[in-house]
Amino acid sequence: MSRQFEHVTLGQRVRFGTGQAAVNLAAEVERLGARRVLLIAEDATEVTSKITVAAHCTDVAPHVPVQNAERARKLASESEADLLVSVGGGSTTGLAKAVALTTGLPIVAVPTTYAGSEATNVWGLTEDARKTTGSDDRVLPVTVIYDAALTESLPPELAVASGCNALAHCVDSMWAPRADPINQALAVEGIRALSRGLRLIGDVEGREMTLYGAYLAAVAFASAGSGLHHKICHVLGGAYNLPHAATHTAVLPYVLAFNGPAAPEAAARITEVLGTGGLTGLYEDIGASHVLRGVTDPAEAARLVLPSVPPSNPRPVTEDDLTALLAAASAGLDPTEWSRA
Amino acid sequence: MSRQFEHVTLGQRVRFGTGQAAVNLAAEVERLGARRVLLIAEDATEVTSKITVAAHCTDVAPHVPVQNAERARKLASESEADLLVSVGGGSTTGLAKAVALTTGLPIVAVPTTYAGSEATNVWGLTEDARKTTGSDDRVLPVTVIYDAALTESLPPELAVASGCNALAHCVDSMWAPRADPINQALAVEGIRALSRGLRLIGDVEGREMTLYGAYLAAVAFASAGSGLHHKICHVLGGAYNLPHAATHTAVLPYVLAFNGPAAPEAAARITEVLGTGGLTGLYEDIGASHVLRGVTDPAEAARLVLPSVPPSNPRPVTEDDLTALLAAASAGLDPTEWSRA
Repeated sequence: MSRQFEHVTLGQRVRFGTGQAAVNLAAEVERLGARRVLLIAEDATEVTSKITVAAHCTDVAPHVPVQNAERARKLASESEADLLVSVGGGSTTGLAKAVALTTGLPIVAVPTTYAGSEATNVWGLTEDARKTTGSDDRVLPVTVIYDAALTESLPPELAVASGCNALAHCVDSMWAPRADPINQALAVEGIRALSRGLRLIGDVEGREMTLYGAYLAAVAFASAGSGLHHKICHVLGGAYNLPHAATHTAVLPYVLAFNGPAAPEAAARITEVLGTGGLTGLYEDIGASHVLRGVTDPAEAARLVLPSVPPSNPRPVTEDDLTALLAAASAGLDPTEWSRA
Repeated sequence: MSRQFEHVTLGQRVRFGTGQAAVNLAAEVERLGARRVLLIAEDATEVTSKITVAAHCTDVAPHVPVQNAERARKLASESEADLLVSVGGGSTTGLAKAVALTTGLPIVAVPTTYAGSEATNVWGLTEDARKTTGSDDRVLPVTVIYDAALTESLPPELAVASGCNALAHCVDSMWAPRADPINQALAVEGIRALSRGLRLIGDVEGREMTLYGAYLAAVAFASAGSGLHHKICHVLGGAYNLPHAATHTAVLPYVLAFNGPAAPEAAARITEVLGTGGLTGLYEDIGASHVLRGVTDPAEAARLVLPSVPPSNPRPVTEDDLTALLAAASAGLDPTEWSRA
């Protein structure tokens, strides 16, 4: 274990139960003594069937445009809301956070995807195509209600991609700048849950395990920060407009292969909980692809990525290393073979 | 994993570093903007060398007598304290919690033992030999400062006993009434740390691992509640005035042997992280004793314990089961052999 660390645990209540969202939401509204709920959701008729909604904002858009946030804040004020209830994916939770940021209203979040925003104190707002992010404990939902039945609208392929993204959060947390024994333990548990859940994504049990793993991924990632993997994907995504989840899925095995030998304890724990065949075995089982698409010039991409590489990465990273990694990923080489070469 | 659960994560900051207590304490006092520190400690000259103390309460006694709490509260009020800093073991942290309970003052706790009180929202007060306990988020220290160097005054034998007590908290959390996947993951990590740390208790690295494990034990136990093991030890301790840590140490292997077959997944995870030889191997390595002393009539003891057995225990427990368990522990039979008989 690292001999010196500072870890902040964010206080939050989690209610987890398939088919229980409506009942659990009603219990939370009651427990919090809320009388004026502002619902933020595109559609949430069933989930909110047991509560009274004072106002309903459906004005959800990706990356939380400032205008949408302003309208939602106005609605919160006009409706004299005393609680925000969000039902939806990352954009919906994000809009609720934008309202909480200025109003201080508590949030009860009911996620319907594996985005994980509900378990972090990070907010984001977009104005004129520029995204501003920050962290503030006021935007952390006081309660998260997880119901795997709500994720069933996600097609299996999207569920796998989104689950792999969560897996990448866990793996990258093992060597991220603020990695510590506590967030590493949560990350390992997340990998354990995701590797089981993703293999059973067609079943409700698999959806439950994946949802639970995605929650841990968010907790671990928010605590540990962005490691090499996320810096690579973030820069590539911005520069070449690559699809988020597919890029994460493709890059992860190469970063693991690259960093693993320099972080043997982390790599051993990751491999152990992934089960037989490690990451390669998991990818084969779930039909995930490690072929990176959309990077035509790995050397150029490497130049773009280099300044973002975390200085604390367990293995020093040169521009040549990045070029080789991105070339291997673009060619779809076997990641394990590549790392040995 | 259990398909339905409610988990409350308590928000808290942990600063961990050997030899860093004074620096970390000064950083926390600064971060919190505190100007009037009430120090609660029998002796803490070095730890507090970098902060200004407005008042100092040394009035620490086991189980927090109400009179001591009243005097400390009065001192808090008279000294216009805006922060409580506790430096010491469970009784010291307990006294700070008693003051926080009525004043709402934040606590920065600097533990010097493996008691774990610093990571829970549980308080206790004793009046006329009766102990009252409760839980209130106001008594949860906002920050815990761990410094393994401060535990070096604990003699190795006491450190082992106290570490085994923490280990029992972890193991029992696996099947306690509010056990859930999250507190189980923390408990498993605690077992991992304690089984390594206890084997190296003579070294600073061992003390660090044990301290870290004791923290996780407290977090897991506070979240999961008392399982069969703790109910047995609690009742026996009260009825026969048995030594706390030695009793926990002796009883644990028999409860694990008894419950294990009925909780195979939990047992497998426990065994896996304990390393070669399981609990028996660990006890041999660290010289811990599984011989229960002080229970002369196991049948009588079983009758006393029975009403406290948690209904959710993974294996049904009869009076005969308890008699057999306590007889085996008192005779010091090999726990694994006994469970197979």
